Amino acid sequence: MKKVKKVKKVKAKKTKKKVVKKEKILTKEELEAKAKKPGELALKLHPFYKGKVKITAKCAIRSFDDFAIWYTPGVAEPCKDIFKDPEKVWEHTNRANLIAVLTDGTRVLGLGDIGPEASLPVMEGKALLFKYLGGVDAVPIAVRTKDPDKFIEIAKLLEPSFGGYNLEDIEQPKCFYILDTLRKELNIPVWHDDQQGTAAVTLAGLINALKIVGKEVSKVRVGMIGAGAAGIACLRVMVAYGFDPGKIVMCDIHGIVHKDRPDFEKQFKYTKDLILKTNAEGRKTEKVEDAIPVTMEGMDVVIAYSKPGP
Amino acid sequence: MKKVKKVKKVKAKKTKKKVVKKEKILTKEELEAKAKKPGELALKLHPFYKGKVKITAKCAIRSFDDFAIWYTPGVAEPCKDIFKDPEKVWEHTNRANLIAVLTDGTRVLGLGDIGPEASLPVMEGKALLFKYLGGVDAVPIAVRTKDPDKFIEIAKLLEPSFGGYNLEDIEQPKCFYILDTLRKELNIPVWHDDQQGTAAVTLAGLINALKIVGKEVSKVRVGMIGAGAAGIACLRVMVAYGFDPGKIVMCDIHGIVHKDRPDFEKQFKYTKDLILKTNAEGRKTEKVEDAIPVTMEGMDVVIAYSKPGP
Repeated sequence: MKKVKKVKKVKAKKTKKKVVKKEKILTKEELEAKAKKPGELALKLHPFYKGKVKITAKCAIRSFDDFAIWYTPGVAEPCKDIFKDPEKVWEHTNRANLIAVLTDGTRVLGLGDIGPEASLPVMEGKALLFKYLGGVDAVPIAVRTKDPDKFIEIAKLLEPSFGGYNLEDIEQPKCFYILDTLRKELNIPVWHDDQQGTAAVTLAGLINALKIVGKEVSKVRVGMIGAGAAGIACLRVMVAYGFDPGKIVMCDIHGIVHKDRPDFEKQFKYTKDLILKTNAEGRKTEKVEDAIPVTMEGMDVVIAYSKPGP
Repeated sequence: MKKVKKVKKVKAKKTKKKVVKKEKILTKEELEAKAKKPGELALKLHPFYKGKVKITAKCAIRSFDDFAIWYTPGVAEPCKDIFKDPEKVWEHTNRANLIAVLTDGTRVLGLGDIGPEASLPVMEGKALLFKYLGGVDAVPIAVRTKDPDKFIEIAKLLEPSFGGYNLEDIEQPKCFYILDTLRKELNIPVWHDDQQGTAAVTLAGLINALKIVGKEVSKVRVGMIGAGAAGIACLRVMVAYGFDPGKIVMCDIHGIVHKDRPDFEKQFKYTKDLILKTNAEGRKTEKVEDAIPVTMEGMDVVIAYSKPGP
C-alpha cells in the first residue's frame, strides 16, 4: 500500500513540472511587445533610481574620531609610505580593485556616435555588471574627445588613479590603435570589451565546435559577416590560435573585404597587416547584395558580428 | 524619608559625572604619543581595508533578467533620450550626485608635492567625507601632470561624466588660475576646498567676532600670517564682503608681502591685482624674523594660515 502511494506522488510531481514547462506560443505582435518591454521599463526606472552605481564607505567608521585615521592627520602616514615606495599604493588604497569604464561615446550599442553624455547609461550599466558579477569597482568615465591621440593622453594621465581600464563603445578603426597603444605604454591592464570580450567567447566556442565535428583548426575555412571591432578582434585571436588567415573571407556593408576596395586604407588603417593576409583566393563580388552568399560559399564556419537585418 | 533619599541619589549622580569629566593631565611624552596614534593606526588600517570608498549598486536587481533593463537592450532607450535632450542626463544617470575629487598631487596635506599616487589616500579620504557627511558620491582622481593648462584640459574633457569638481591639494599660485578658469569655462560647479572651504568658515567666524566686539567691517585692520591658497582665498572673500584691502597686511615665509619683493611677480602671478590693493601704508621689514610682529602691529584681527612652528 505504502509503495503505491509513493509512486503516485512522483507521477503527480512529474506532471506538474511538465505543465510549468509548457509555454504559450506567442503571436508576432506579442513577441514584439515582449521585446520592447525592457526598453519601456528602462525609460521609467532609470529616472526612478537616477543612476545604477554609487559610492559607499569601504572602511569602518566607529565615530567621528576615526576621521583622524582616514583623513587628517593620520592619512599622512600611508601617503608618505606610498611616496617612499610607489608599489604600496596597491595596499593603502582601493586602486587594486578599481577600474575605469572609459569611452568617447562614438559607438554606443547599435546607436553609433551619440556622444559622451548619452553613453553614460551604458557605462554605468557596465560598471554595475563589473561589480555585481565580478566584484570589481568600476567608475564610468565618458570623455569629450573624438581624437584617438587625445583619448590616449587622457588614459595615460589618469593612470595613477586606476588599477585597469575597460575601454567601451569606441568606434573602429581607432579602437584598435587606442587599445594597442595603451597596452604598450601603460603599466596597468587595458581591455577593450567589444574586441577582446567578444573574441574570447567566440574562440572558445569555435575550439569546442571544431572538436565535435572533428575538423582541424588550420584547415578550416571561415566566412565572417561583419568587419567591425568584434569581427576583426575575433580574426586576430583566431589567427593567433592557429587559424589560417588565407582561408578566412570577411565581408561588411560595403561588400567582401579585399585590398582593392576604395575604402580599404581608411577602414583598416590600424589592422591592414592582418586583413591583407585574409581572402587568399581573392573572392570579390560586383554587387554588394552578393557579398554574404559569396562569403559563405563552401565555408566550414560562419561568424556574424553585424547589425541585425538583411 | 523618601525626599531625603531622592536628594542623596541626585548628589551621587552629580559626583559620578564629575569623576567622569575629570581627565588625567598628560605629560608631554603622553601627549606626543596620543598625537601619533592616528598615524600609527592609519598605517595599519589602510592595508587592512585596502581603500576607503568602493562602488556599489544603486538600482534594484531582482534577477538576471533585470540586466535587460539596466544593460542591453533596454538601456538604449535612456541613451536615445539623452541624445535627444542632453538635460535628461541628470535624470537617467547618477551624474547629479556625482563629483570628482581632482588633484595633481602637488600640495598634499603639509607634505608638499608627493605626486598623484601618494595623494590617493587623501583623495579617498575626502571622497569618504563627502559621502559620509554629505551623501554625495565622490570619485578620487589623481592626474599625472603638473602643467596647469593640461590639468584644465583634462577637467574639461572629463566634464560629461561628473556633476561637479572638488579640486584638492593643488599648489599655489596655479590653483587660483585653475579654479578661476574652470569656473568660467565649465557648465558644472567647481570648488577648490583649500581656497573656498577655508575662506567660507573664516569669513563666517570673522563676521560674528566683529559683531561681538562691535567693530565695523570696513574699518577693521587685519594682519594675515601666511599667503598661501587658504590665506589669499580668505583675503578674496573678505574684500568681496566689504573689508578694506588697504587695511590688510599679509606676510609669508619670505617676509611682509609688498610689490617690491623679488618673488612678487612669480608668487602672486594670478592674484596680483588683489594683492596690490593690500598694505596701503607700505609696511616692510629688513629682516624676515620681524615680519610677523610688524604685520600684527596695531591690528584688530590676526588670521594665520601658515605652517606650524616659528
